[in-house]
Amino acid sequence: MVATTNHQIRLAAHPVGFPSPNDFSAAEEPIPVLGDGQMLCRTIYLSLDPYMRGRMNQGPSYAPGVQIGETMGGGTVSQVIESNLDSYQTGDFVLTANGWQEYALSDGVGVRKLDPEVAPISTALGVLGMPGHTAFCGLLDLGKPKSGETVVVSAASGAVGAVVGQIAKIQGCRVVGIAGAQKKCDYVTSELGFDACVSHRVDDLPKTLGNACPDGIDVYFENVGGKVFEAVLPLLNTFSRVPICGRIANYNDTGPSEAPNLVPKLMGLTLVRRITLRGFIIFDHTDREPDFLRDVSAWIRDGSLKYREDVVDGLENAVSAFQGLLRGENFGKLLVRVSNDPTR
Amino acid sequence: MVATTNHQIRLAAHPVGFPSPNDFSAAEEPIPVLGDGQMLCRTIYLSLDPYMRGRMNQGPSYAPGVQIGETMGGGTVSQVIESNLDSYQTGDFVLTANGWQEYALSDGVGVRKLDPEVAPISTALGVLGMPGHTAFCGLLDLGKPKSGETVVVSAASGAVGAVVGQIAKIQGCRVVGIAGAQKKCDYVTSELGFDACVSHRVDDLPKTLGNACPDGIDVYFENVGGKVFEAVLPLLNTFSRVPICGRIANYNDTGPSEAPNLVPKLMGLTLVRRITLRGFIIFDHTDREPDFLRDVSAWIRDGSLKYREDVVDGLENAVSAFQGLLRGENFGKLLVRVSNDPTR
Repeated sequence: MVATTNHQIRLAAHPVGFPSPNDFSAAEEPIPVLGDGQMLCRTIYLSLDPYMRGRMNQGPSYAPGVQIGETMGGGTVSQVIESNLDSYQTGDFVLTANGWQEYALSDGVGVRKLDPEVAPISTALGVLGMPGHTAFCGLLDLGKPKSGETVVVSAASGAVGAVVGQIAKIQGCRVVGIAGAQKKCDYVTSELGFDACVSHRVDDLPKTLGNACPDGIDVYFENVGGKVFEAVLPLLNTFSRVPICGRIANYNDTGPSEAPNLVPKLMGLTLVRRITLRGFIIFDHTDREPDFLRDVSAWIRDGSLKYREDVVDGLENAVSAFQGLLRGENFGKLLVRVSNDPTR
Repeated sequence: MVATTNHQIRLAAHPVGFPSPNDFSAAEEPIPVLGDGQMLCRTIYLSLDPYMRGRMNQGPSYAPGVQIGETMGGGTVSQVIESNLDSYQTGDFVLTANGWQEYALSDGVGVRKLDPEVAPISTALGVLGMPGHTAFCGLLDLGKPKSGETVVVSAASGAVGAVVGQIAKIQGCRVVGIAGAQKKCDYVTSELGFDACVSHRVDDLPKTLGNACPDGIDVYFENVGGKVFEAVLPLLNTFSRVPICGRIANYNDTGPSEAPNLVPKLMGLTLVRRITLRGFIIFDHTDREPDFLRDVSAWIRDGSLKYREDVVDGLENAVSAFQGLLRGENFGKLLVRVSNDPTR
């Protein structure tokens, strides 16, 4: 039986606060017809990433937002079904951006061919993809960790955080993670080799984190924001660096929090301790992709860098999986398996 | 008549909030007696600078604080009265750190000899001293302004801000100042050549500042904090740089303000716009002092850099002058003339 329907998930409304299922709609279209200079790709894995929450908002962020009625965008690992492009053949595995749907056309621009013999194809969305690249550049190029320094990373068991911490260990740093569930904390210390991991659910986070960082913090890799950042702030050492990668705790904020304003405290400490806070987005660091792929692939091969995936089956479960991501319920890089992975 | 008394101003209490005259006490001591390897220096000019507020607090900042009963520290231009040092003769003018008193001994370490033929000796505390050096490094090394970019500096008529803005003009930037009194705004545009200057006392500062910066802000040189920083924040461009030099509006804060917390907004913009916020203190940049002295001296000679001093007579007026500094009442680099300047 040949499939003829392309199932999609579209944005139905700009979420206000935490996204609800009503902010999305399921749609069906005929599978698009191939034109000259195009290929048709079937989605195998859809990547769900925190940055997507920003794209659901009205008004521009650093990239254009998704419009009402438009299919949600997103990175995917796909298989070529049919191709008019010389460089891609039917059956090839590719990193594309099909978005939240089963099929999409591509002209091959921005596509990377994947060799299942080299690494599982799903890793092109995680440890060997955008999250891994983000961790690599954010830690090494912005955080500039030196051997013996203390590196703290939040969302420590996540797609970015787990890579940040393991690269910091390879650089000879003391590495402290921050995560939610105890099983995540156990995983990053026992499996990934972090020196310590603190749950942000403890009663006295500033004190618990302080105890885990007796020499203060030299690099804080920020994925979370909110109360975690407030606990980190007083521990930042003179000349410390804070690459700002994400702030998932604040993505659903609908306005300033009613807590007393801490900007003066933040700016005061930044001045007195000569701290560098720097936001970054991985699109600005494409020149480092070859270095990233070379080094991280080698670290995976020699066993010094491990990864974990959390795979949810079925496009129809993408919305609830994304809600779980915003609540920190995933454990490892979150993927939706939209169709069967023939390499497994 | 030979003077025998050394008048001093000591810290009597750690100020809580805005410093009061009761936080200081006048004291008298015999003029100290010269030992081997020492010289005795009489204070001519005492520099009053915003950083001194931090030194009055209990607990360490980036430098040890002043203890109760201790004479307030501070940079001074002094004259050598008596010397057992080969490199300093009676009558020499020197940059020292006598503090808030008439006389002090020095072993010559950290002292710079001043030639009144090259520049007025008072400038060693301002445009050719720590404030000028701070402006030079903060703007050029951290702000990295490019020709055509928009540079905004707060406390624009002050000892640091005036130099920042004029160097930015020399670099080919559009320069917008922020100051309080209208006479200060007029001065920085008509005398110093800034393209615009906005008073932070206007009703709608964010809008007024936005109108003065139609292309946004590429470098914000932060001297002030508070509401001025909040007005600057939304105008910061992608890849903008924010050297954090001071936050005088917040120096007397006794706790977090009750305004809603803006840290998430600050961090969110810093991420999305890839902003760099970096605190700095001039002590970390002593290697740039020769470059600073060479370039700023040349710009003063060729008329492209002007400066203004606000001189208050008498050590007994130092406390009220310092209070005025915290209120923004000085107009130009604030100095206390402790004794007659024989070069004028």
